[in-house]
Amino acid sequence: MKAVFIGSGNVATHLAQALQAKGVIISQVYSRTQKNAATLAEKLNTSYTTDISEVYDKADIYFYALKDSSFRETLRKFDLPDAIHVHTAGSIPMSDFDGMATRYGVFYPLQTFSKEKEVDFSKVPVCIEAINTKVQQTLLDLAHLLGSKTYLISSEQRKKLHLAAVFACNFTNYMYDVSSQILENMGVSFEILQPLIMETAEKVQSIVPYKAQTGPAVRFDKKTISCHLGMLKNRKDLKKIYKILSKDIYKRHKKKY
Amino acid sequence: MKAVFIGSGNVATHLAQALQAKGVIISQVYSRTQKNAATLAEKLNTSYTTDISEVYDKADIYFYALKDSSFRETLRKFDLPDAIHVHTAGSIPMSDFDGMATRYGVFYPLQTFSKEKEVDFSKVPVCIEAINTKVQQTLLDLAHLLGSKTYLISSEQRKKLHLAAVFACNFTNYMYDVSSQILENMGVSFEILQPLIMETAEKVQSIVPYKAQTGPAVRFDKKTISCHLGMLKNRKDLKKIYKILSKDIYKRHKKKY
Repeated sequence: MKAVFIGSGNVATHLAQALQAKGVIISQVYSRTQKNAATLAEKLNTSYTTDISEVYDKADIYFYALKDSSFRETLRKFDLPDAIHVHTAGSIPMSDFDGMATRYGVFYPLQTFSKEKEVDFSKVPVCIEAINTKVQQTLLDLAHLLGSKTYLISSEQRKKLHLAAVFACNFTNYMYDVSSQILENMGVSFEILQPLIMETAEKVQSIVPYKAQTGPAVRFDKKTISCHLGMLKNRKDLKKIYKILSKDIYKRHKKKY
Repeated sequence: MKAVFIGSGNVATHLAQALQAKGVIISQVYSRTQKNAATLAEKLNTSYTTDISEVYDKADIYFYALKDSSFRETLRKFDLPDAIHVHTAGSIPMSDFDGMATRYGVFYPLQTFSKEKEVDFSKVPVCIEAINTKVQQTLLDLAHLLGSKTYLISSEQRKKLHLAAVFACNFTNYMYDVSSQILENMGVSFEILQPLIMETAEKVQSIVPYKAQTGPAVRFDKKTISCHLGMLKNRKDLKKIYKILSKDIYKRHKKKY
């Protein structure tokens, strides 16, 4: 199987490398940014182009791993009806391919990718959606080749999943960031909180988050809450978050406030 | 060394077991609740009492692992000037021992403990504070016996550390809980998010949270943000959290909104 990657960001980088390691031929990388295209092509020992008219047209599958905002305008420039076209995005509905391609689908790896860190795809859930069962089977086969667990997820569901991931990943990371600011302010290294962060994540691998909830809010420990709010008097932003989250945690567990 | 545990909750349970495994003799467990006292004493193969006048008075060290609200009233009932008295709480200042004991300190394991899950103390940072260097050395020795990393942390610092831990652990878990509610609502198992949660926590073991921040808010992806807010129209509580956190993340990274 021959694949072309349209895009050269984190998702493209990790996914292309993982597929190549399993025997998929990455024929070419396309990116508008020469530097990124060259970097990824070098990693894959393949060619690249920044000229859309020179994109290799004999691949079996084209992966669009682009910013959401560039997806449709880029897709529009392709006319390769025999190939499979898939995007890798959480929030783009599959219907964005309508009229632009005939064999298409979505291959959404539900994970956070960073340049600095290797990805083990056997631990990445892949959400799949396809225009027909034949394309679906090809995408399932590719995901299984990577050792990934697969989920058939509709566009509507994927949108909600992406929303859930914003809470579980992006907002969670902001909570880490807030804690690191508090530590920085007191001159203590962030490493002191790292084991707690790992354990908090590990807990919900076996217990539902509802049952894993601890802290002053869930036991309505007014004294600690008001002490903490007092400590945040010069950080109105954090005070607001602390108040709202404490109230919501209490409500969730006591059904009243 | 002989120790008595005052309290029989999660911290007492894990800490007493870990110390015993390293050769510390747990002479007795005291708790107001017979059932909890008996359960812990059985695990330790030691005796217990629910009568404070019968607490063993020849131990070298007394660990107070109690609810914050019961600490002082319980401590008041003890008059054992030769022993070391330590509490294990994040938010109780060491000065609460003033006039109640002469040799005292704090042994605060910065971790979240649950009944269901074993604790590896070699991964638990222990925050230590003591009235004098001799007591401090005893507490450092005990923590090192457990293989724990130790930090000398003042009461004022510990209070801030506890606040940081509320963000890094309790509020983080609530973010997980919110995401599990969204998944439940769409009929998809929470397991699909578990790898993302682990990876998000693992990232900040090597990258500072500020640099690990991803998501629609940090790239000011207005389209995705307003799509997500629309999806939360029936959950005003979550909509409010989404708005505030997105705004704060954006501000933190762009210095304006």
